[in-house]
Amino acid sequence: MSLTVIKYDRGMSRWEPNARGRLEQAALKLYIERGFEQTTVAEIAKLAGLTERTFFRYFADKREVLFWGAGALQELLVSTVVDAPDSQAPITVISAAIEAAGAVFQERRESALLRQSVIGANTELQERELIKLATLASAMAGALRQRDVREPGASLTAEAGIAVLKIAFERWINETGQQDLPGLIRESLDELRTVTAGR
Amino acid sequence: MSLTVIKYDRGMSRWEPNARGRLEQAALKLYIERGFEQTTVAEIAKLAGLTERTFFRYFADKREVLFWGAGALQELLVSTVVDAPDSQAPITVISAAIEAAGAVFQERRESALLRQSVIGANTELQERELIKLATLASAMAGALRQRDVREPGASLTAEAGIAVLKIAFERWINETGQQDLPGLIRESLDELRTVTAGR
Repeated sequence: MSLTVIKYDRGMSRWEPNARGRLEQAALKLYIERGFEQTTVAEIAKLAGLTERTFFRYFADKREVLFWGAGALQELLVSTVVDAPDSQAPITVISAAIEAAGAVFQERRESALLRQSVIGANTELQERELIKLATLASAMAGALRQRDVREPGASLTAEAGIAVLKIAFERWINETGQQDLPGLIRESLDELRTVTAGR
Repeated sequence: MSLTVIKYDRGMSRWEPNARGRLEQAALKLYIERGFEQTTVAEIAKLAGLTERTFFRYFADKREVLFWGAGALQELLVSTVVDAPDSQAPITVISAAIEAAGAVFQERRESALLRQSVIGANTELQERELIKLATLASAMAGALRQRDVREPGASLTAEAGIAVLKIAFERWINETGQQDLPGLIRESLDELRTVTAGR
């Protein structure tokens, strides 16, 4: 038993305060300065004052630094949909979910901007981002079906929500930042309502 | 001058009737039977009764067999948007564009089904398909801006159109094929109107 404890202690090495955050910041800085392709894990770890081994405790590879938050984002979207009051219309539920996601990005505006600038400079990362969005749309459609929303309504509502999130996010990134993301999301959804109602 | 002609004749070798179509059919057959990854260009050419050299005259690689139509599809969508009467609302214009695309798929239903089954079995190809859809949405948004539709309305309308096309296409592939794709597109757009209007 004591042997197990010793092995555990050695295996985990010493605790580094906010190692994930430090690695993320260092990675973003290097991806922007040198380009994503040109940056090595060794350089990221060094800049963060940590070891490569610590890096790989948090991230499978250097791409994951940019995408590790996708799981938590999906969980937030899905739980918001699942937990919404029964009486709410599907689009209202999806709207609440993407606004909740927007509020998270808003809180981390600076690193969201850095991340977006890295992704915008690299085709492979842009592809990964599109896959992430498609996965989020599928997950939200599944959560709507759990609320007995039928197809194709569930998928259409979820896809519309992701389209709104994507366009609002682009506006938030490109505009001077005077409007907050949840506000832009609400505005974009209203705009979607207006355009789809047109004849 | 005569030398040029001789070189040209030798360079192009003999004309093969419908070489592109034969290569495409052979490739789809092998991708389904053996998997996309496991199929070689040599095998495709052999099954089509053509040479590898002929293959590469039509396709840059074996993935392009599945995506060479994307350019023509984009042209169809964009030209439908650009050529629509000035009086038409953006969503009507986008609807006409995706229905025109739907009619093309409908005419080639059998190969569209085969292609989809190949893509569904391979993550990398699914990623490529998502990128294609995102590119088509951007192109349609650009065409709407040429019609003086302002942002974010142009992008939202285009993204909504691609979402409708995607969902209608999935229904068309998965259902028993009793409904034609342009009809499913109209139905899905009506459904999107209904869901976005909900409160």
